[in-house]
Amino acid sequence: MNRTLFLGVDGGATGCRARIADEAGTTLGEGEGGPANPRFGVAEAGASIGVAAEAALAAAGLPKAALGRLQAGLGLAGVGQARDRAAMLAWRHPFAALALATDAETACLGAHDGGDGGILVVGTGSCGMARVGTDWVRVGGWGFPISDQGSGAWLGLRAIRAALWAHDGIGAATPLTGAVMREFGGDPEAIVAWLAGARSRDYAALAPMVVTHAEGGDGIARELLAGAADEVAAMLGRLFGLGLARVCLMGGLAPVLAARLPQDLQGRLSAPLGDALDGALILARQAATA
Amino acid sequence: MNRTLFLGVDGGATGCRARIADEAGTTLGEGEGGPANPRFGVAEAGASIGVAAEAALAAAGLPKAALGRLQAGLGLAGVGQARDRAAMLAWRHPFAALALATDAETACLGAHDGGDGGILVVGTGSCGMARVGTDWVRVGGWGFPISDQGSGAWLGLRAIRAALWAHDGIGAATPLTGAVMREFGGDPEAIVAWLAGARSRDYAALAPMVVTHAEGGDGIARELLAGAADEVAAMLGRLFGLGLARVCLMGGLAPVLAARLPQDLQGRLSAPLGDALDGALILARQAATA
Repeated sequence: MNRTLFLGVDGGATGCRARIADEAGTTLGEGEGGPANPRFGVAEAGASIGVAAEAALAAAGLPKAALGRLQAGLGLAGVGQARDRAAMLAWRHPFAALALATDAETACLGAHDGGDGGILVVGTGSCGMARVGTDWVRVGGWGFPISDQGSGAWLGLRAIRAALWAHDGIGAATPLTGAVMREFGGDPEAIVAWLAGARSRDYAALAPMVVTHAEGGDGIARELLAGAADEVAAMLGRLFGLGLARVCLMGGLAPVLAARLPQDLQGRLSAPLGDALDGALILARQAATA
Repeated sequence: MNRTLFLGVDGGATGCRARIADEAGTTLGEGEGGPANPRFGVAEAGASIGVAAEAALAAAGLPKAALGRLQAGLGLAGVGQARDRAAMLAWRHPFAALALATDAETACLGAHDGGDGGILVVGTGSCGMARVGTDWVRVGGWGFPISDQGSGAWLGLRAIRAALWAHDGIGAATPLTGAVMREFGGDPEAIVAWLAGARSRDYAALAPMVVTHAEGGDGIARELLAGAADEVAAMLGRLFGLGLARVCLMGGLAPVLAARLPQDLQGRLSAPLGDALDGALILARQAATA
């Protein structure tokens, strides 16, 4: 009954997931919780992680008291910032032990089963991470709009810009620029009003429209995806330049952008061996044996 | 003593200026006041305009009571938005009459002495405006980062992006990318922290650094200015495409970017005939005779 248990958590601004596994690596149970980005509050992040961990224990048929037996590995968005990392480490957690990394780092550990390799995650934002021996190398992911090239937010920003450029009679009008303007009632003033409160996910909400129109042959949509693929290729080039044999392209836009990469680059990409929860479990295991 | 007096006001988020002229167009006095952008409060904007107008009256040797004799023309940033325009028009002003336009429109009226013509203002942001007969045509100026191409904020964003690209080992490192990183203590985490509260003027604060480095031969700085000049050329092309004989390039970045335009485009640019206060006075005069 007192065998060691491992807890892996993958958390971000919209929610967190937890997985419990035994020493053999067998999954015993999984659970979910609310937002767990310490930048928006360590108390909330800790509570969400607790909820997810208890749900995973319940799914594993284990009592809540088993929280104190868990060797936890957390991969959390935001803890790349020293201040947020320190705040999260000061959390009075209920576990036997806690190891902390960014969600990009745990995703990378999971993708390569703890071995060397790189990942480039392209979703709302974009961020590359590589494990090289005992070092981490980060590429991008410094935030929108100064970074996050090739991401959904990056595509959304460019789609709006193209729509306004067409509205002003400077750039071409295409089905995409028309569709974007209709999202705002055809009124550029509505875009100005929207802009004041727009965050990266609001920009990224327009990305599926770009993808759909590109598939329909829209010239501007195709240009935008080609541009995003160029940015992704540059970031992948940096990761391969580290001498890594395995690099994975991940995230919601990965299939769309992978198809637009140069053939030789496409051929060099590897499939992930596991997900971010697998990576968080590897983190927990490595910390327990360190 | 009861001759008609005209008041011109040019107002924005940082302050406002007022000028009083007689029917012959002779300047009688000028004054200054605080911020006057109705988006940030009509009461404040009205109070600032009152202060500037009273200071201009005092400079003209006229009593405060003469406020009620002024035919006012206001060119204010922000009143391109219907809601802010309506709010400003509801202001219980102390003048004999009030005519309202955007600061871009009064700048355009001033630049062409009330006649047809276009302006492109490139400073913190960028915005084009043209008077064609009785119509106004606006080009750009929808806000950063979706618009304001070629502006100081646009340059600052690209300078940060280049600095991070170099930091991540993807792009070239040059004196400019090093100088930008030093602004943030060499720490990309400091950029992430800065980003949360950064407004367009904060981005634009880096533009002089780009200009200085371009003059020193920095390759990336020169690319950024060349890119800004391309955006400006596209907007100027739209203005000339309206059939205008006179188009002026104005704002803090005008000299730097004009020098980087194709020669034929440089040769087509006109010098402004007057400033935004002249334009606000023209607005007041046109309203009085309408």
